[in-house]
Amino acid sequence: MPYVNIKVTREGTAPGATATTPEQKRALIKGVSDLLFEVLGKPHASTFVVIDEVDMENWGVGGVTVPEYRAQQAKVER
Amino acid sequence: MPYVNIKVTREGTAPGATATTPEQKRALIKGVSDLLFEVLGKPHASTFVVIDEVDMENWGVGGVTVPEYRAQQAKVER
Amino acid sequence: MPYVNIKVTREGTAPGATATTPEQKRALIKGVSDLLFEVLGKPHASTFVVIDEVDMENWGVGGVTVPEYRAQQAKVER
Amino acid sequence: MPYVNIKVTREGTAPGATATTPEQKRALIKGVSDLLFEVLGKPHASTFVVIDEVDMENWGVGGVTVPEYRAQQAKVER
Amino acid sequence: MPYVNIKVTREGTAPGATATTPEQKRALIKGVSDLLFEVLGKPHASTFVVIDEVDMENWGVGGVTVPEYRAQQAKVER
Amino acid sequence: MPYVNIKVTREGTAPGATATTPEQKRALIKGVSDLLFEVLGKPHASTFVVIDEVDMENWGVGGVTVPEYRAQQAKVER
Repeated sequence: MPYVNIKVTREGTAPGATATTPEQKRALIKGVSDLLFEVLGKPHASTFVVIDEVDMENWGVGGVTVPEYRAQQAKVER
Repeated sequence: MPYVNIKVTREGTAPGATATTPEQKRALIKGVSDLLFEVLGKPHASTFVVIDEVDMENWGVGGVTVPEYRAQQAKVER
Repeated sequence: MPYVNIKVTREGTAPGATATTPEQKRALIKGVSDLLFEVLGKPHASTFVVIDEVDMENWGVGGVTVPEYRAQQAKVER
Repeated sequence: MPYVNIKVTREGTAPGATATTPEQKRALIKGVSDLLFEVLGKPHASTFVVIDEVDMENWGVGGVTVPEYRAQQAKVER
Repeated sequence: MPYVNIKVTREGTAPGATATTPEQKRALIKGVSDLLFEVLGKPHASTFVVIDEVDMENWGVGGVTVPEYRAQQAKVER
Repeated sequence: MPYVNIKVTREGTAPGATATTPEQKRALIKGVSDLLFEVLGKPHASTFVVIDEVDMENWGVGGVTVPEYRAQQAKVER
């Protein structure tokens, strides 16, 4: 009966992508389901996985939005 | 003070619909609010109901996306 | 595939109860599952319902905890 | 490590806006992060804030959708 | 920045356990973090994983609680 | 109608405390409600705030549990 919710920022991490690709979503769903089976013996058929993609300006870290935070981090690293 | 979150796949279940219809949403909101009142005595005015519609490729079951799972199930049934 | 999460304060609403009773939980699970079937045609077997009970001091409304809010409301009504 | 999820209806509350503005989102992210630091000493860099905007017809209160509820309230107040 | 929430029933799936063991929790945390890194390139240090264990009578499927559902399934299979 | 969910690790951050204190919870509830009012004009009476405290071994970051992650960070800093 597991329910797994994956929240990620809506951005491309594959070449040319602007959001999580269908292939990546399938890999996440398979990977999580396999993990729940291997670790807890939970059957795939009773494991729900829901992926939420969140707009970048809707996700905050470091007290600012993700794009601002990454810009700050890049400046620090330079 | 109940907060009820209903997550469903973004698909039509009413004739001609491609997503949950406004009428269906109202029926879900009313039904859940009535239920919380009948079972726990919670006043309607202090019951929040939030409906999230999730893209089909973002919902996994059986280790695959919902469309793939349904195709597998249909094949098994044939 | 619906996933429904019901969050309520941890309190008794049945005579002598200090929390939601097993009977009330069963009624909530059955009621929500029946509702998803009647409104959206979702099979009971693929509807997950999770009930979370939240300590009273962990739930805020009106800028204060639920017990404080109810005390304020009672005073206003007197 | 705090994770804070803010769910609000998708509507404009700033002049001319039809949804939460980027400035309002930044203010919410900063305000919540500052609060977690001041109250619990949680570093900004390890505080996640996620804002979800919910369509008005997907949010229920009083057993009806938010627009219907507000219309009812307005009628009562007249 | 991923946030992953894993909800499972509070039960033992390892010999002699009555709940998810510390070792199983670590395996779930590592497995999910590795998956987000492999599939989306998300650094481990910015991936939050939260495991919620839900009492059996608080989780419904098939319109009944999990224990009742499993008893029904066992009867069907006999 | 905002619903704000604050998830924090179950630990003491006030002297002598082993979990979030009632005073801290009230400060979080008040602070978040004030923020939603100041930024979005949302009335306190229709803002729900729910605080979830998560056991340390149930929260992962850096691919390990929070205690392990903090131990690693402390070693790096030495």
